[in-house]
Amino acid sequence: MAKKLAILGSTGSIGRSTLEIVRRHPDRFKIIALAAGKNKDLFKRQVEEFKPKIISLEHGNDTRELKKGLSYSPKVCCGNDGLLEVAACAEADMTVSALVGARGLAPTLAAIKAKKDIAIANKEVLVMAGRLVMEEVKKNKINLLPIDSEHSAIFQSLVGHKRDDIKRLILTASGGPFLNLPLKKLSDITHEQALNHPKWKMGKKVTIDSATLMNKGLEVIEAMWLFDMPPEKIGVHIHPQSVVHSMVEYIDGSIVAQLGPTDMKGPISYALTYPDERIDCGIGSLDLCKMDKLTFMEPDEKRFPALRLAYEAMEAGGLMPAVLNAADEVAVEAFLRREIRFTDITKIVKTVMEKYQKQKSKAQNPKLNQILDADGWARETAKEIITENEKGNVYVS
Amino acid sequence: MAKKLAILGSTGSIGRSTLEIVRRHPDRFKIIALAAGKNKDLFKRQVEEFKPKIISLEHGNDTRELKKGLSYSPKVCCGNDGLLEVAACAEADMTVSALVGARGLAPTLAAIKAKKDIAIANKEVLVMAGRLVMEEVKKNKINLLPIDSEHSAIFQSLVGHKRDDIKRLILTASGGPFLNLPLKKLSDITHEQALNHPKWKMGKKVTIDSATLMNKGLEVIEAMWLFDMPPEKIGVHIHPQSVVHSMVEYIDGSIVAQLGPTDMKGPISYALTYPDERIDCGIGSLDLCKMDKLTFMEPDEKRFPALRLAYEAMEAGGLMPAVLNAADEVAVEAFLRREIRFTDITKIVKTVMEKYQKQKSKAQNPKLNQILDADGWARETAKEIITENEKGNVYVS
Repeated sequence: MAKKLAILGSTGSIGRSTLEIVRRHPDRFKIIALAAGKNKDLFKRQVEEFKPKIISLEHGNDTRELKKGLSYSPKVCCGNDGLLEVAACAEADMTVSALVGARGLAPTLAAIKAKKDIAIANKEVLVMAGRLVMEEVKKNKINLLPIDSEHSAIFQSLVGHKRDDIKRLILTASGGPFLNLPLKKLSDITHEQALNHPKWKMGKKVTIDSATLMNKGLEVIEAMWLFDMPPEKIGVHIHPQSVVHSMVEYIDGSIVAQLGPTDMKGPISYALTYPDERIDCGIGSLDLCKMDKLTFMEPDEKRFPALRLAYEAMEAGGLMPAVLNAADEVAVEAFLRREIRFTDITKIVKTVMEKYQKQKSKAQNPKLNQILDADGWARETAKEIITENEKGNVYVS
Repeated sequence: MAKKLAILGSTGSIGRSTLEIVRRHPDRFKIIALAAGKNKDLFKRQVEEFKPKIISLEHGNDTRELKKGLSYSPKVCCGNDGLLEVAACAEADMTVSALVGARGLAPTLAAIKAKKDIAIANKEVLVMAGRLVMEEVKKNKINLLPIDSEHSAIFQSLVGHKRDDIKRLILTASGGPFLNLPLKKLSDITHEQALNHPKWKMGKKVTIDSATLMNKGLEVIEAMWLFDMPPEKIGVHIHPQSVVHSMVEYIDGSIVAQLGPTDMKGPISYALTYPDERIDCGIGSLDLCKMDKLTFMEPDEKRFPALRLAYEAMEAGGLMPAVLNAADEVAVEAFLRREIRFTDITKIVKTVMEKYQKQKSKAQNPKLNQILDADGWARETAKEIITENEKGNVYVS
C-alpha cells in the first residue's frame, strides 16, 4: 500500500525534493494534498502531475486563476485555512511539514491532532513550540520524523540503542561560507556571498542562517525537543566537509554516526519510509575514498555569536526560543532586502532577546496564543530596531 | 543480577581487558571460570583476585603447581578437556572466546551447544567453521556478539536497522605499519617492525596479520558469517587513523558508522553488556576536534595480497578459508621465529591454497572433523614449504 502524503510547502526546496522521491517511487507514495505559497506556475505543474485531491495557495486570486486552468477538479483552498485543510486532510497517512518559519506551526499542530505522522523540515515549529508539539505527539501517538539532515542522522544513530546509554548528541555544522573569513570582513558580506553555501542547496532563509550558524542554534533547540535531551547534552562540531551529518556518543565511549551525500533527498526519504524498508532515492553512494579529508573543530563563538544566543534561549526556556526565532526571521529578511549588514542579524536577535528578558512573561509551559503573542512582539520589536537603524540611530550590543 | 562469565584465554590481551572491565563493574559481571595457556604467574593472580569456580591451564604440571599455592579450592583442569570444561561450565551466562587461532574452535562450539551467549574475539573460529558455528548459534538460540572492533562497529551500526536495507558492509583497516613503505622494502621488514602497530595494542599473531592485512581478510570472512552477507557486499577501506571502526551502507545512500577510542575495552564492554545498558569502561571520550584529519583509501592489492587471498578463499568456499587460516598461522609463527621473510607469509598461504585447490575435498558444508583435517593438512603443508625454503629450495608464487 502506498503511503498517502500531504505536503505543506510543495514548491520549496524540501517540497520539490519530496516530489522527486514520490515520482521515483509511485508504488510507495501517493500525493493526497499539496499547499504552497506564491509560486503558482510551479504549483500548477505539480498539481497536474500528481493530481492531489486538495490543493491550496497563499492568495485567493491565485487559487481562482489556478482552478480555471486545471484538467480536473480538486478541492481548492487558500491562505491559513487552506494550510489547515491540507495539513489535516482526512486521507493522508503522513504530512510533510516543509513551510519556512513560524506560519508552519498551526498547520503542523493541526496535522498532529488529526493523527497524521509528521515528517518535519520546518524546524521553527519545534523551536517555537517544542513542548506543546511534543505533548501533542505523545498524546496522539504519532511518529514525528526529522527531515533536517542532522536530526535524521541522530535519529538513525539512535534507533536500536538505549536512551539511557546516551552521553551526548553531537550536531555537525559545515561552518558555512565564512568559516575562514577574517573576522573584520564579516560586516561587509553581501547577500550574494551569504547565499552561496559551500555544501548544501537549500532555501534562502536557512542558507543565511547557516552562514551565521543561527541555523545550528535552531537545530540544537530542535534536537532538545525531538530527542528529549537537556542543552548540556547537545554539542556542536564544525565539520566543513558535511560528510558526517551528526553523531550520538554513548557512555561507553562509542560514537554512532550517520554519513551520506549532501543531498536532502537522503533524510527526506528516510523520514518518508520509516519504519518500512528504505528506498533508493537517487542520490548515489558516498565514496569516502574520493572525499576530502574529514576534519572537526569546536565552533568559534566570536565568529558565530548566534550559537551562544540559542543556548541562552534554551536556558531561559519558556518563550525565549520563540523570540529568538522571530527576531531572526525578521533580521534575515531585512538582510536579504539589503537593509542591514550581515553582522547585524545576530545583533538584532540579541537586542530583542534582551528587551524581552526585561519586559515579558516567563511562562515555562506557554500555550499557543502566548507563543504567537511572543512571536508577534519579537517581530515588531525587531522591525522597530531595524527602522531606528535606518534612521541612523544605533541599536544596542 | 551480575552476568556470569567464563573466559577462554584470560591472560591474553582480550582476556586481560575483559577482566579490567569486570574489576570496574563487579555489580554487572561475575567470573565463574577462567582458562589460559602457559602464563601461569599472571593466571594465578587472576584466579586469586576473581576466585572462579573452574580454572584450567594448558599443561597438567602447571595446574598441579597452581593448585598447591591457591587460597581456595576451585575445580582445576588442564589441556583441551579443561578448555571444554571452562567453555561450557554450567553456571556461566556468557563465554568469552578469546583464544588465539584454531584451538578455540572446539571449546567455542561446546559453549554454544551448552547454550551460553558468546562474546567472540577468536576470529579463526568463524573463519574455519563459520557455517557450522552459525548453524549451532541458530539451533541453540544464543547471542553471538563480536569483540573485534570492526564487527562490533558493524553490529552497532546495524541494530535497529533492517537487514534488507543493507547495501554493503565497509570494514576499515588501519593499513598497519607498512602502509607507506616502498614496496621493494617489504621483504626486509624485521619482526620488531611488524610488531609495532601504529594504532592498536594487540597480541602478536593479530599484529603481524594487521601488517600483512591478512587480519582484514580474516575479518571479511568473519563478517560474512556473523552478518550473513555475501563477499561482494563486504568492502574494505584503509583508514590509517582507526577512528571509524567500520560502517554499514544502506540502499538510500545513508552510511551508519561507529567511531571510538582505539581501545579494545570498547568493543569488549559492548559485547559483555548487550542487550542491557552500556557501561563506562574507562576508555574516555573520542575528541574528534583534537584528532588527525580522517582519511580513507582503497586497499592496494600489490602491497596487501593477503586481502585478495581471503576473497578467493570465500569464493572457493567449503574448507578453503580453514586452509588459508591454518597456513597463515604457521607462516606467522615462522616469521616470528625469524625463519621466513615478511613477504613470505602471504606467499606461503597462497602456495598452500593452490596445492589444496588441486588435491582436496570441495565439501561446501564441511563437518568439524573435515575442518580439522583440512586444518591439519594445511599446517603440515605450510611447514613442509618452510622447511624446503630453509634448505634453499624456492617455493612457488
